[in-house]
Amino acid sequence: MSKQRIYLFDTTLRDGQQTPGIDFSVEDKIAIARLLDDFGIDYVEGGYPGANPTDDAFFDRKRTKDARFVAFGMTKRAGVSASNDPGLAALIRSSSDAICFVAKSWDYHVKVALGCTNEENLESVRASVEAAVKAGKEAMVDCEHFFDGFKANPEYAIACARTALEAGARWVVLCDTNGGTLPSEIKTIVGQVIASGIPGENLGIHAHDDTGQAVANSLAAIEAGVCQVQGTLNGIGERCGNANLISIIPTLALKPAFADRFETGISSGQLAGISRLSRAFDELLNRAPEAQAPYVGTSAFATKAGIHASAIAKEPKTYEHVPPETVGNRRKVMVSDQGGKANFIAELKRRGIDVPREDTLLDSLISVVKEREATGYAYEGADASFELLARRMLHTVPDFFDVISFRCIVERRFDANGNIKTVSEAIVKVSVDGDERMSVAEGHGPVNALDLALRKDLGRYQNELNDLELADYKVRILNGGTEAITRVLIESRDSTGARWWTVGVSDNIIDASFQALMDSVIYKLMKNRELAGLVAAE
Amino acid sequence: MSKQRIYLFDTTLRDGQQTPGIDFSVEDKIAIARLLDDFGIDYVEGGYPGANPTDDAFFDRKRTKDARFVAFGMTKRAGVSASNDPGLAALIRSSSDAICFVAKSWDYHVKVALGCTNEENLESVRASVEAAVKAGKEAMVDCEHFFDGFKANPEYAIACARTALEAGARWVVLCDTNGGTLPSEIKTIVGQVIASGIPGENLGIHAHDDTGQAVANSLAAIEAGVCQVQGTLNGIGERCGNANLISIIPTLALKPAFADRFETGISSGQLAGISRLSRAFDELLNRAPEAQAPYVGTSAFATKAGIHASAIAKEPKTYEHVPPETVGNRRKVMVSDQGGKANFIAELKRRGIDVPREDTLLDSLISVVKEREATGYAYEGADASFELLARRMLHTVPDFFDVISFRCIVERRFDANGNIKTVSEAIVKVSVDGDERMSVAEGHGPVNALDLALRKDLGRYQNELNDLELADYKVRILNGGTEAITRVLIESRDSTGARWWTVGVSDNIIDASFQALMDSVIYKLMKNRELAGLVAAE
Repeated sequence: MSKQRIYLFDTTLRDGQQTPGIDFSVEDKIAIARLLDDFGIDYVEGGYPGANPTDDAFFDRKRTKDARFVAFGMTKRAGVSASNDPGLAALIRSSSDAICFVAKSWDYHVKVALGCTNEENLESVRASVEAAVKAGKEAMVDCEHFFDGFKANPEYAIACARTALEAGARWVVLCDTNGGTLPSEIKTIVGQVIASGIPGENLGIHAHDDTGQAVANSLAAIEAGVCQVQGTLNGIGERCGNANLISIIPTLALKPAFADRFETGISSGQLAGISRLSRAFDELLNRAPEAQAPYVGTSAFATKAGIHASAIAKEPKTYEHVPPETVGNRRKVMVSDQGGKANFIAELKRRGIDVPREDTLLDSLISVVKEREATGYAYEGADASFELLARRMLHTVPDFFDVISFRCIVERRFDANGNIKTVSEAIVKVSVDGDERMSVAEGHGPVNALDLALRKDLGRYQNELNDLELADYKVRILNGGTEAITRVLIESRDSTGARWWTVGVSDNIIDASFQALMDSVIYKLMKNRELAGLVAAE
Repeated sequence: MSKQRIYLFDTTLRDGQQTPGIDFSVEDKIAIARLLDDFGIDYVEGGYPGANPTDDAFFDRKRTKDARFVAFGMTKRAGVSASNDPGLAALIRSSSDAICFVAKSWDYHVKVALGCTNEENLESVRASVEAAVKAGKEAMVDCEHFFDGFKANPEYAIACARTALEAGARWVVLCDTNGGTLPSEIKTIVGQVIASGIPGENLGIHAHDDTGQAVANSLAAIEAGVCQVQGTLNGIGERCGNANLISIIPTLALKPAFADRFETGISSGQLAGISRLSRAFDELLNRAPEAQAPYVGTSAFATKAGIHASAIAKEPKTYEHVPPETVGNRRKVMVSDQGGKANFIAELKRRGIDVPREDTLLDSLISVVKEREATGYAYEGADASFELLARRMLHTVPDFFDVISFRCIVERRFDANGNIKTVSEAIVKVSVDGDERMSVAEGHGPVNALDLALRKDLGRYQNELNDLELADYKVRILNGGTEAITRVLIESRDSTGARWWTVGVSDNIIDASFQALMDSVIYKLMKNRELAGLVAAE
């Protein structure tokens, strides 16, 4: 039996742009369109040409290679001919392969928002679709508020869909614009639409996450017969977001209930790039990827529980709903005070450290980790500090240098012009190869000053640290009030693209930050040697 | 027709504890149990007594008033009698109302993970439930991997459920432990379980979010007949998280498809507290609430200025799937001006500050707040700083004292005995009534030192500040890397029982902390005068 083809339609650049706090530049749009195109999405909706200068510029040429490039806009206004509607003209003029018209399909909104008759609205749909087709473009119609409209007046909602198809539209997309429709309602209504004679091959679904069910609504519509699914990267979008394509695509491809009946344009090789796609998009938005995101989050295949960890090491398949590598992700058994010995061995192994189960150093390491976690360290979030601690206890980290002392001063006062000025200065004294060196630096804040001073003169290690950068800095106060313990997590990166987290804990925030900084520097030096195969030779 | 009662079971403190990066202290657990209990949850699962010292301490007394307090643990081991199993004994001994046993219901796992026979596993379920019931506790059984187990061997999965009920369990909970089951599968399997003779009144659902459908899976199970739903606050949990009760509860209460058939223990008054509950929990975790969270996120009812905004102002009901106030949230149309001004007037009024709409000072205040929020201030979480700013701009705060300068030094070195020692010292110069005073203090960390030095000598204000205490201190880095901006929130309290939050923002953490400290001290002095009715007389 041949499988039904499901078409993937991405609206990150159009509906995703409605996300509070997100505004794409033309360059952002170009980069995102390329990501989507390379990944294998069928339709990339780029925006609303004619509505703003960014989208005008973005649509001045075709921005995709394989994907169909879609312009979004309103149907022509009632009482104006298609050839005289400036909005429609801008859509036709744009360098798009397809036009997605948004049309009212709830009679109440036709009256209140458009202020025209139901028949005039149908006529606008018809004329707009015909104009697009005549211009050689693929036409589709987003039926806004379709499900609410169907509940109020099913005949009119269906008439909108039918008018669009009769005028030559390739697709009619059923939109749950307010996002409040439930999966069982979606399934029933899609079934009724198809039963009314509209073919599922021409239907799409556009869902929003206002009840936390946009993914389920989209999949329910596919089960009921629609063949196009709209959504966004990582589920961005207005209010609670759009359906998350990053969650929908793996389910379509990997779950027998879907994979046995349907196919998409995404190959298994492309699917293995979906974790990278999701993270690349977050990078572009300059935000931290969501660790708990389905399929692609760094925690999606992570286990903390001691009771499960040893079983997972033995039989991963029965504990994982899909193999992590199919979506380009990986298994992670976390170190924490809940984990057992098997966790530790597995984690050390993943880092290339082989320790026999009966080695007493392993027991010492476990008890040190537990002791430190009891005082506030969190090694599960600080991979590099954990690896460093393990290697130190197993005697495979050289003493690169010693910090003899540091001092750091923050001073606020009025400058000569009467303006308030805050200056941070740090002095660090280190010993490298028996040689004492003192460095001083000013920074934005005491931690930045300490970082600069620490790395200012480390003798023969100096040049290795040039590409080390702080990428993120997190502070958590573990117990409020005056006896507060501060936990600092620092993320570092270097020019190889590697990123690592280190941790420091103290009742003094500067001290905690310094510990995390030191771990990061030492880890970087150790990593360099490991790459060069020099650990043993030091 | 009477409605079917659905019972809400929260496992934030047990399964939620499996979230990477989350570790609750006993104090955290006490605070969260109180939030859940006050909100009206039926069952609060507190943890795993016998497994770790935190849970032992937490279960040394009952921690809920109305909710049933549930201990989680394994069924007794095969080959050991119930009375000789130390794990079971710890559960029975705990101060819980109910025990939730986890039991294998997938024959494959019985063999591989437990290493016992199918019959021995059933016997462990039976004996454990009987022991709990005999001890006067409500018993329930979490059937681990139920759906995967059912697909592999439906008879055995059902036998586990039946054994538990026959032994006296109140509930059998069907767990989608790996999180990969789809809503349509859940619906079919729950239907088959009920058709086999297990009453829906005794069934619960426990779903995970590995395909982004934990909420849909839970609701599908309820539609199919289960009467208990398990989940966590804000959907925390292992891997991709558990079913999010914060999303499920409003759908059950507000959507006719559910509300017409089912009822929960949550009144409409309690439901209006759900946004507050969700945010209070994030506060406790010291993380930013998710703006796009269904129902409760600050963006859940927000519309970006555009085609919808003016229509929403006219006809909110047809653009919102539920009224925001039913879940204690509010509409947000981001076109500012009119709506913005009314908000400000209301916010000021709530603090006893009356400003006429046409007062130009009000416009200045609005623009200063917007400007500051754009640079990172968050007045929503810092009531006292907002009130202070408003009163300052409306000229009703006296100049109590001026800070001329401060200096703060953190030094780490080896002491005479060769131990590392970190000392923090702060010097503050203030002017009170034209009189300059300098104070110096040592503290645990630079912020503590600054706080002590600032309050050491403030002349005639000195005695008023004796009962001022710092209760909490939170730090958030607003944009990672080297241009990081630090936001510090400080919670203060005094002997009247009042608590207030102040905020400071700077690229320098010490500077940001000092701003928040200063606001706290000034707010306290202002509050004292207000209580004494002396503001005008200063």
